[in-house]
Amino acid sequence: MSSSSSSSFEQPQVITCKAAVAWRAGEPLVMEEVEVSPPQPLEIRIKVVCTSLCRSDLSAWESQSLLPRIFGHEAAGIVESIGEGVTEFEKGDHVLAVFTGECGSCRHCISGKSNMCQVLGMERKGLMHSDQKTRFSIKGKPVYHYCAVSSFSEYTVVHSGCAVKVDPVAPLHKICLLSCGVAAGSLGAAWNVADVQKGSSVVIFGLGTVGLSVAQGAKLRGATQIIGVDINPAKAEQAKTFGVTDFINSNDLSEPTPQVIKRMTGGGADFSFECVGDTGIATTALQSCSDGWGMTVTLGVPKVKPEVSAHYGLFLSGKSLKGTLFGGWKPKSDLPSLIEKYMNKEIMIDEFVTHNLAFDEINKAFDLMRNGNCLRCVLHMPK
Amino acid sequence: MSSSSSSSFEQPQVITCKAAVAWRAGEPLVMEEVEVSPPQPLEIRIKVVCTSLCRSDLSAWESQSLLPRIFGHEAAGIVESIGEGVTEFEKGDHVLAVFTGECGSCRHCISGKSNMCQVLGMERKGLMHSDQKTRFSIKGKPVYHYCAVSSFSEYTVVHSGCAVKVDPVAPLHKICLLSCGVAAGSLGAAWNVADVQKGSSVVIFGLGTVGLSVAQGAKLRGATQIIGVDINPAKAEQAKTFGVTDFINSNDLSEPTPQVIKRMTGGGADFSFECVGDTGIATTALQSCSDGWGMTVTLGVPKVKPEVSAHYGLFLSGKSLKGTLFGGWKPKSDLPSLIEKYMNKEIMIDEFVTHNLAFDEINKAFDLMRNGNCLRCVLHMPK
Repeated sequence: MSSSSSSSFEQPQVITCKAAVAWRAGEPLVMEEVEVSPPQPLEIRIKVVCTSLCRSDLSAWESQSLLPRIFGHEAAGIVESIGEGVTEFEKGDHVLAVFTGECGSCRHCISGKSNMCQVLGMERKGLMHSDQKTRFSIKGKPVYHYCAVSSFSEYTVVHSGCAVKVDPVAPLHKICLLSCGVAAGSLGAAWNVADVQKGSSVVIFGLGTVGLSVAQGAKLRGATQIIGVDINPAKAEQAKTFGVTDFINSNDLSEPTPQVIKRMTGGGADFSFECVGDTGIATTALQSCSDGWGMTVTLGVPKVKPEVSAHYGLFLSGKSLKGTLFGGWKPKSDLPSLIEKYMNKEIMIDEFVTHNLAFDEINKAFDLMRNGNCLRCVLHMPK
Repeated sequence: MSSSSSSSFEQPQVITCKAAVAWRAGEPLVMEEVEVSPPQPLEIRIKVVCTSLCRSDLSAWESQSLLPRIFGHEAAGIVESIGEGVTEFEKGDHVLAVFTGECGSCRHCISGKSNMCQVLGMERKGLMHSDQKTRFSIKGKPVYHYCAVSSFSEYTVVHSGCAVKVDPVAPLHKICLLSCGVAAGSLGAAWNVADVQKGSSVVIFGLGTVGLSVAQGAKLRGATQIIGVDINPAKAEQAKTFGVTDFINSNDLSEPTPQVIKRMTGGGADFSFECVGDTGIATTALQSCSDGWGMTVTLGVPKVKPEVSAHYGLFLSGKSLKGTLFGGWKPKSDLPSLIEKYMNKEIMIDEFVTHNLAFDEINKAFDLMRNGNCLRCVLHMPK
């Protein structure tokens, strides 16, 4: 990268650096020289160190009309410069960038029960929260952000409310996985949302990173039966690492899945998790949990049918359906303690990293994710 | 009524008495002489004293194919005789009969978190739990039970697990309302299921007995804003008695109801309750509650579309959907303390009784309920 000429002391300038730009939906990203604006008031500019690829990036890239765009939202890096009014960060701080922010003062941030920040909540228009503009451009033409992070770039600008200062001892190429609804989010689904209890039975539909992270969360809470359901037989072995006690290949079943789960659990699981992104499976998950107290948590973002539909009798019999974004974690308030847990070897992250690639091999990472051969691929920026 | 000749000491005999029999769906009940068998093992026969009419009776009567049948499931009476093995009751005990039982030993009864008894749960075939036969007949032809209670008869037989012994001081013509998912059930929806907290905002769709009982429950928990939504303007005044602070006639709105509720509550209600029996309104209720922590409880039994359908984003943003049968109360474990609360004037029942009629005026009670002029009509048996 190269900085533009510095006209005033300490005043951040436009940075020109490499970014993987999506020009057309589903077509390979193109490594481009992009201009990254200085951070505006309350923003910070981050030198991205590592970024991992999440299935949401893939889904958005396949379907997205908001182009050109820079994807990437699981990211760890170092603060390069700060905008006016930023007091929480300084240059050199290690940070995670997060897709859902924490302003600290809205009714959700001040509540003890919600992470749905009303000011810096999930950003879907590809623009910065503060002025609804982009900080990326190519030869003057704007390039859209993604999820307020856009980490498939050597430098990115985020709102200071969408970044979390982290202990510089923590390895950025691992903890970047905590910055999305992945390891963090789905641990939160098991802990904050479902509040899985010791001795519980749990069934997880979909054994990607999200599902396996739920398994980890359930295991750490002392669930005794953790049933994993997937259509990929290769998941059977891999899932054991994360605590799955029983594997079901739903393609091999000759009777409805809920019937099998009910038999295995003596009446239905205490908790079921939909981690596929399929509203039909959310219904199956609801049917698979116990009358009286069974709870289904839906985590996936469906690509096809957006409506969850279920017979009223499932609810009348005492089941409940919940969902969550980022596992209920408030990023600034909660991520530091998750990082501490990782450093104390209380939670696994390394086991989710199945691949490491250099940033310029990013299209290979997309292929790996698309082919189902990958939990997480961490992309390493040039030093 | 008349007893058949007594052939052995203390051995209960067939009783012939009056019952209001439904012969055809939606046609007036016919007062008939029915034979009521002696209670079989673990059953009791009850002399019904009072029975109130619930909307479920009306709905079942309008649509029911299982005929002839004796409806009625909110009932208070006195034990007339007991079957073999019954130790909990004796002749003369005052009891409530309940549509969902408590066996005391299944995994739900022994759990602290479910009232969905697996042995004596809701009965839908019109037969006794123990032998799948009826205890009613007319000239030898079987007459079906309803909801394990069938209280539109001077005498009825119920499983001893579907009856609750009550303090004989309690007025049967009031506490009969506690024997269904009405005053009891919907109080439970507010307390056990939603666990409404002090200072909460609550919105209730449908201000019949169920909705108004939810209002009472919410008020007693200290909810500060209780919005009632109905299409009957007459409800506005009546609802105040039960704690409703704001009335909305949804027919008068020029914008979607959730939008109005969100404005009134500063972002969505903490709790919303569907008390109409309309799955579309369950979706509206979900849309009307707050992101992050909003909870919708669905209580109604829909007559038309049985599937609740909602956009996944409602769940992803942290809302939850629950349901309940009988408000989560375990009848034997919990009803006595509710009766005590009533006797101590801690909960209202009397205010729900808008009409009192003699048993032989039962078709008038059906008309009252059908015309929406009635919360509860209590039918009094001849002395």
